[in-house]
Amino acid sequence: MLINHPPVLAEVTAVFADYERALVNNDVQALIHFFWQSPLAVRYGAAENLYGWEQIVAFRKQRTPPPPRTLFNTVITTYGHDYANTSTEFRRDNGTGRQSQSWIRTEQGWKIAAAHVSLMPD
Amino acid sequence: MLINHPPVLAEVTAVFADYERALVNNDVQALIHFFWQSPLAVRYGAAENLYGWEQIVAFRKQRTPPPPRTLFNTVITTYGHDYANTSTEFRRDNGTGRQSQSWIRTEQGWKIAAAHVSLMPD
Repeated sequence: MLINHPPVLAEVTAVFADYERALVNNDVQALIHFFWQSPLAVRYGAAENLYGWEQIVAFRKQRTPPPPRTLFNTVITTYGHDYANTSTEFRRDNGTGRQSQSWIRTEQGWKIAAAHVSLMPD
Repeated sequence: MLINHPPVLAEVTAVFADYERALVNNDVQALIHFFWQSPLAVRYGAAENLYGWEQIVAFRKQRTPPPPRTLFNTVITTYGHDYANTSTEFRRDNGTGRQSQSWIRTEQGWKIAAAHVSLMPD
């Protein structure tokens, strides 16, 4: 299996950075379009479990802008040409957390098919 | 992209069940071999962040057997022939949590390349 093929890794690294920028700016339209438009998309957030793109959109539209964060220990790994995972820790004023994303290449570009965000217990 | 191709979905559904059985039985040898033997494997646990297969193995060997749990809202999705995600909630006596896994097909069979487990805040 082709792991971290440079052009694929470059694509996913770029879209991961785009997502982070959209998150920090609470760019809701951008954020919802990073997710796979499928009833099979899953997003586990810090305090919510969302199933399907429609639930993810509804959540994004009502949430208050998230506080700033800094990423560290980021690992981006691609498998073949069409699949990738990103794992990262983040630090906010009130603590640290983890974000995991599974990305798939679709006809509309790279999309997040599954995500999981959680805060570290104190 | 081929989503949930029945033979692939059957394979991943079986290995997901095998993993759960090993977890409930705290079968450490089985558990460590469900993970991709790579420095790129990542496992975010309820209270630990593990990078690379060696850290995952060391954690498994020292942990006490986990308490029983029941899964619900399980979503298993396969993409093409070689990639899959599983997302599930679980309930234990002391609360609920979420488990996300990204599986890849390797020469040694299906392996977890990235995982994230977290407890829901009270």
